[in-house]
Amino acid sequence: MAEADTVHISELTWSDYDKRLRGGATPILLPVGALEQHGPHLPMNCDTIIPTAVCERVAARVGALVAPPLEYGYKSQPRSGGGNHFPGTTSLDAATLIAMGRDIIRELARHGARKLAIVVGHTENLMFTTEACDLALRELRGEGIDDMRIMHMGYWEFSSEATLRKVFPDGFPSWNLEHAGVMETSVMLHLNKDLVRFDRVPTHPPANFPPYDVYPVEPDRIPASGALSSGRTASAEKGKFMLDEYVESIAAALSREFVL
Amino acid sequence: MAEADTVHISELTWSDYDKRLRGGATPILLPVGALEQHGPHLPMNCDTIIPTAVCERVAARVGALVAPPLEYGYKSQPRSGGGNHFPGTTSLDAATLIAMGRDIIRELARHGARKLAIVVGHTENLMFTTEACDLALRELRGEGIDDMRIMHMGYWEFSSEATLRKVFPDGFPSWNLEHAGVMETSVMLHLNKDLVRFDRVPTHPPANFPPYDVYPVEPDRIPASGALSSGRTASAEKGKFMLDEYVESIAAALSREFVL
Amino acid sequence: MAEADTVHISELTWSDYDKRLRGGATPILLPVGALEQHGPHLPMNCDTIIPTAVCERVAARVGALVAPPLEYGYKSQPRSGGGNHFPGTTSLDAATLIAMGRDIIRELARHGARKLAIVVGHTENLMFTTEACDLALRELRGEGIDDMRIMHMGYWEFSSEATLRKVFPDGFPSWNLEHAGVMETSVMLHLNKDLVRFDRVPTHPPANFPPYDVYPVEPDRIPASGALSSGRTASAEKGKFMLDEYVESIAAALSREFVL
Amino acid sequence: MAEADTVHISELTWSDYDKRLRGGATPILLPVGALEQHGPHLPMNCDTIIPTAVCERVAARVGALVAPPLEYGYKSQPRSGGGNHFPGTTSLDAATLIAMGRDIIRELARHGARKLAIVVGHTENLMFTTEACDLALRELRGEGIDDMRIMHMGYWEFSSEATLRKVFPDGFPSWNLEHAGVMETSVMLHLNKDLVRFDRVPTHPPANFPPYDVYPVEPDRIPASGALSSGRTASAEKGKFMLDEYVESIAAALSREFVL
Amino acid sequence: MAEADTVHISELTWSDYDKRLRGGATPILLPVGALEQHGPHLPMNCDTIIPTAVCERVAARVGALVAPPLEYGYKSQPRSGGGNHFPGTTSLDAATLIAMGRDIIRELARHGARKLAIVVGHTENLMFTTEACDLALRELRGEGIDDMRIMHMGYWEFSSEATLRKVFPDGFPSWNLEHAGVMETSVMLHLNKDLVRFDRVPTHPPANFPPYDVYPVEPDRIPASGALSSGRTASAEKGKFMLDEYVESIAAALSREFVL
Amino acid sequence: MAEADTVHISELTWSDYDKRLRGGATPILLPVGALEQHGPHLPMNCDTIIPTAVCERVAARVGALVAPPLEYGYKSQPRSGGGNHFPGTTSLDAATLIAMGRDIIRELARHGARKLAIVVGHTENLMFTTEACDLALRELRGEGIDDMRIMHMGYWEFSSEATLRKVFPDGFPSWNLEHAGVMETSVMLHLNKDLVRFDRVPTHPPANFPPYDVYPVEPDRIPASGALSSGRTASAEKGKFMLDEYVESIAAALSREFVL
Repeated sequence: MAEADTVHISELTWSDYDKRLRGGATPILLPVGALEQHGPHLPMNCDTIIPTAVCERVAARVGALVAPPLEYGYKSQPRSGGGNHFPGTTSLDAATLIAMGRDIIRELARHGARKLAIVVGHTENLMFTTEACDLALRELRGEGIDDMRIMHMGYWEFSSEATLRKVFPDGFPSWNLEHAGVMETSVMLHLNKDLVRFDRVPTHPPANFPPYDVYPVEPDRIPASGALSSGRTASAEKGKFMLDEYVESIAAALSREFVL
Repeated sequence: MAEADTVHISELTWSDYDKRLRGGATPILLPVGALEQHGPHLPMNCDTIIPTAVCERVAARVGALVAPPLEYGYKSQPRSGGGNHFPGTTSLDAATLIAMGRDIIRELARHGARKLAIVVGHTENLMFTTEACDLALRELRGEGIDDMRIMHMGYWEFSSEATLRKVFPDGFPSWNLEHAGVMETSVMLHLNKDLVRFDRVPTHPPANFPPYDVYPVEPDRIPASGALSSGRTASAEKGKFMLDEYVESIAAALSREFVL
Repeated sequence: MAEADTVHISELTWSDYDKRLRGGATPILLPVGALEQHGPHLPMNCDTIIPTAVCERVAARVGALVAPPLEYGYKSQPRSGGGNHFPGTTSLDAATLIAMGRDIIRELARHGARKLAIVVGHTENLMFTTEACDLALRELRGEGIDDMRIMHMGYWEFSSEATLRKVFPDGFPSWNLEHAGVMETSVMLHLNKDLVRFDRVPTHPPANFPPYDVYPVEPDRIPASGALSSGRTASAEKGKFMLDEYVESIAAALSREFVL
Repeated sequence: MAEADTVHISELTWSDYDKRLRGGATPILLPVGALEQHGPHLPMNCDTIIPTAVCERVAARVGALVAPPLEYGYKSQPRSGGGNHFPGTTSLDAATLIAMGRDIIRELARHGARKLAIVVGHTENLMFTTEACDLALRELRGEGIDDMRIMHMGYWEFSSEATLRKVFPDGFPSWNLEHAGVMETSVMLHLNKDLVRFDRVPTHPPANFPPYDVYPVEPDRIPASGALSSGRTASAEKGKFMLDEYVESIAAALSREFVL
Repeated sequence: MAEADTVHISELTWSDYDKRLRGGATPILLPVGALEQHGPHLPMNCDTIIPTAVCERVAARVGALVAPPLEYGYKSQPRSGGGNHFPGTTSLDAATLIAMGRDIIRELARHGARKLAIVVGHTENLMFTTEACDLALRELRGEGIDDMRIMHMGYWEFSSEATLRKVFPDGFPSWNLEHAGVMETSVMLHLNKDLVRFDRVPTHPPANFPPYDVYPVEPDRIPASGALSSGRTASAEKGKFMLDEYVESIAAALSREFVL
Repeated sequence: MAEADTVHISELTWSDYDKRLRGGATPILLPVGALEQHGPHLPMNCDTIIPTAVCERVAARVGALVAPPLEYGYKSQPRSGGGNHFPGTTSLDAATLIAMGRDIIRELARHGARKLAIVVGHTENLMFTTEACDLALRELRGEGIDDMRIMHMGYWEFSSEATLRKVFPDGFPSWNLEHAGVMETSVMLHLNKDLVRFDRVPTHPPANFPPYDVYPVEPDRIPASGALSSGRTASAEKGKFMLDEYVESIAAALSREFVL
């Protein structure tokens, strides 16, 4: 394989990685996903596959590298993921996810990386990867490293309003209700339609939640499908359209922040 | 995709997973790898790719499922992995790896799984995944679950003496010195030769260590290549031969322990 | 003092508390705030005072009790609180806040409480108090207690759309940008106008953030005032109006969930 | 409100706090209390109210500021607080209290504070706030801050022998047996007599303990009232007398240590 | 060696231990010491040797067994041990000591032990071994064990007032000031005079402390000897007299509590 | 006692220790053992006594000092210690052992020590004391100490092949199967034959394990004696021979590494 053919750190030898990192100038992208039910029609790795795909494409554009994704995330919450009681949803305690993020950042800094982008694919992770950044930066200061910069994002936040209007002509519900909905179904159809059972896509109306949660989760308050809205209007074309925008916008943001 | 075509939990919908798990009778295999330098010729994900490949093949034989691998492992040690000072080696603190293992076991038990095999691909992980099992089983007892059984193994320990004699006609050094050596190079050649830069395989003699470690690691005590012995006699055929034995022996062990 | 005059657990004797708790039927409300900059015009305890005021009023209506508020919260984030670099903002590590919540829930359960509402006043706390609930409920199951129910909410999520239209006639920006904005300024003017320096209320336009964060926080991306939008249209009347709705809606939710 | 009217950090805007802190020269006082049963006649927040009152008065004298009190403390012990089995007593694990203290010290140091006094109101907290100081100072050294100085005290230790002779003419039992006894009842009568049910003050003799504890606590070894001695000779006058001495002595100690 | 000749668990085979434990009826004594400076004349293991000696003698009387002592304890405090800045004083973080105690209790319970006495030899340990008891008992309840009983004590608290009058004819200062003073010097002279450099016993007056601590510890506030009072009136006879009383009183307490 | 008569830090006064440490040039040896069943014939402290004896002798040769041993270790594993289910085996959680090691290293560094050797007597400890070294060195870098060097070893790894051929004329099984076997029995006969019940030495063949573990441990897969091979060919002479080699080789290694 020609060395330049991969953006995945995991597929590089250490010496090629070392060369590619070039004194910290090369950004590293870390996808942070989950293993979580995504309705009866989507595979449980959506939240990992999509940000990883985003990272691969961004890396190819801006000359970055992609670290292995975190494939387990924080506990699914009722109003954004249906709740953590579904079989298959396999989640970490907060402390575990925080420690994963912190340790990886610490190690990348040891390698010399100084530009890192954490690309989250699962809403529930965001505050814990935020804490991981804070703890890692605190530790790094203790080691005398104070020039590490970290961009932290959920990829879906890069959808423009124009795109939302186009993809959701009848009105965009909310990112939380989009769990296993039109966007994720579309992007998965585009990325790997073999993993999508489109024949099973739920058609029920969006879930309707009060403005609070009750714990322990009461399963009969959650759509039995696990999806929070219907992906029946999804298509591979919409998926490509949305993914392209994520890639383009995130690549632009990296270029701007990291002067690439 | 036909539902039966995958052994990967991550590629199943939650409802298919739930059906496949069948009240706990289906075993789940968890590969636990690392992102670690493996000499100038192997990609850094060897310790993840190989046990994952073992798990996929074992799962296909015995009707098991494979959980997403842990792609980050414990700190590389000088005498078994060259030490944790190499660029690219990206390791977790002990507490983090323990917590990862414990959380995943806890969740699988919540799904109803009662037969779990942890297949480690990186020597340094073993004691920490052992602790993960102990902590998880303690917690599960607190939840009233006392029938979870966990097999815990390093895949390489399933090489028979006959195989070692055949693959290492001039004498088998030790599994520790085999880091990035004949076995790993062979299996990688078999699994994905595009990721192997065989032209760079080191030819230096095996590393020679005193019976102790010194910390902080002193890099000039370690072969500069990162490999602890030479993989120059590796071949895809040897790789297939060894991998087949791992798969066959581990499948047999699972069938015996879990009455499959 | 007549025993019935207070809703604050802290002001009761243990024996009166014990009597009031009546076998777990009495709900307990726990306000979770922060010590955080709120612009040049608001005191740093807004996020504690407001949910505590909500809890006092709800408790009076539904016969509940109020536990002492948590007055320190999670680290202020740039896009919802201006960032944690301001003097005065005094924040906890994630693990600390999680442990606080977990310990208090565990103790309330020991007293016999079975109905608990956590009323968060600081956005950044939400995921950590969520984790506190999960850990506490797990521990309680270990102690054989499985009938504790916890409502978990951010009080501001109880604003109806009608109210937002009325209070923000020119359009509601977002709750995140409302940090030290119209709502908080109004409610503080209503609750304790002596703590508000209305003469200093910022008049700058709302902060304009890209859809990601950069850590370490770069202070010059944040309005120097610390407020994320202007509270110049705030008034005590608006504050009363909004507070009344919070109290009424949360009281109704408690009555419904806890069959009061 | 005139800015100088409050000593409470929580009531200041961040910019006023920043000005008041004046490069670290202004001391900060942190009251550390508890939510703990104090007999049938005292409210459960005695251990918070009293040190907070001390801190407010000391701050006013020496130009210090008061941070929000910690209202939850370490587990009540049989021989100093009656034990942790009483309803209402709401206690933290050691690790939680330590982390609270450490995090707050770390943040105050970030603001520029260099003079801190921790004023404990609950005996059982002392060793844990001690650990908090040690961990915080260790961390601060890692951040390059080595000039933070912390005074650490239980306010009651500032009673002179003359005072004890005067307040306890029949002999001073011990601070441990004074739980909900003459001193606390007196100071509460002085500070807020509405919270004291003096009609219920226990009249039983002081508790009589062997020189060891037995865990789990056996409730029938503890006075059923929760008080460890009788507060029947308490009075608001005694309370004022004792409180004044605490304030005067602690203010003097701060002035001496911090060269105010 | 005749099996009955030792009270030390560490010197028994597992099968003899198992037999001796007799279904939990045999009490186990756990000495918890420290490695801490004890002036210029005493070895640094005083706080371990003395409680271990007490435990051995108590065990011989009541038919108990002695677990290996914890030889490292919590950080020395200025007013009870001179402070943790002395060379030689080798202390644990709070979390570490708590975990040590908790783990050992958990394991003894697994063996079937139900009667445990923790005999502390170092004041600073007491609150942390208290927490260890609480955490262990909580965990054991999770495992369904609710009949473990733990006595928790500092051995010195068993000195009668008569003894103090006799040993300290000029007045007993306080246990805190007795650090490396008459009692410890006397008992060490009795137990192992070879370890005592009596020629170096300090003769300075007792340390004089204000009623608070300042951290970081300022060494020149502490007697340079490390002793907090003078042991010059110590003698082996006094040591024997005091030790005998400890043994007799603690044995009596165990017999009473554990119905031996 | 003449000051030079002991190598044990615990038996020195702090001032003698301080003098002996001589600016960090004196190495410190830390034995790390266990309280673990060792068959029906050996006391449970073998894994502590042997490395402590090694350390004492090495220290006498090279002018080093010995810290108090850790007498509790990590959980016994089936294939190296028989498993953790035996009565008497008293083990720590991974986190506890790691913290013990880290704290002690941190304190020794504070005293000025810069040369440390950790001599493990219990296989299962090795990875956890390794982590302790890594965490301690990381912390020390934060404190500005980067010249601490730690040797880390299992004493048994210093047996030469010649010795193994001599002591095991019929073939050396493996160190794992040597649990309570010829080596440990021999060394204990040499060190303290009173603690050995040689009449009970098991004569069963070596345990026969598959290349994996199953958790929870199934006791009937383990020899009921707890020994993994027979020590019937043990003798005090063999013990002296092996111990002498350990001492000589380890002393040589220290001299070489620490330039003594």
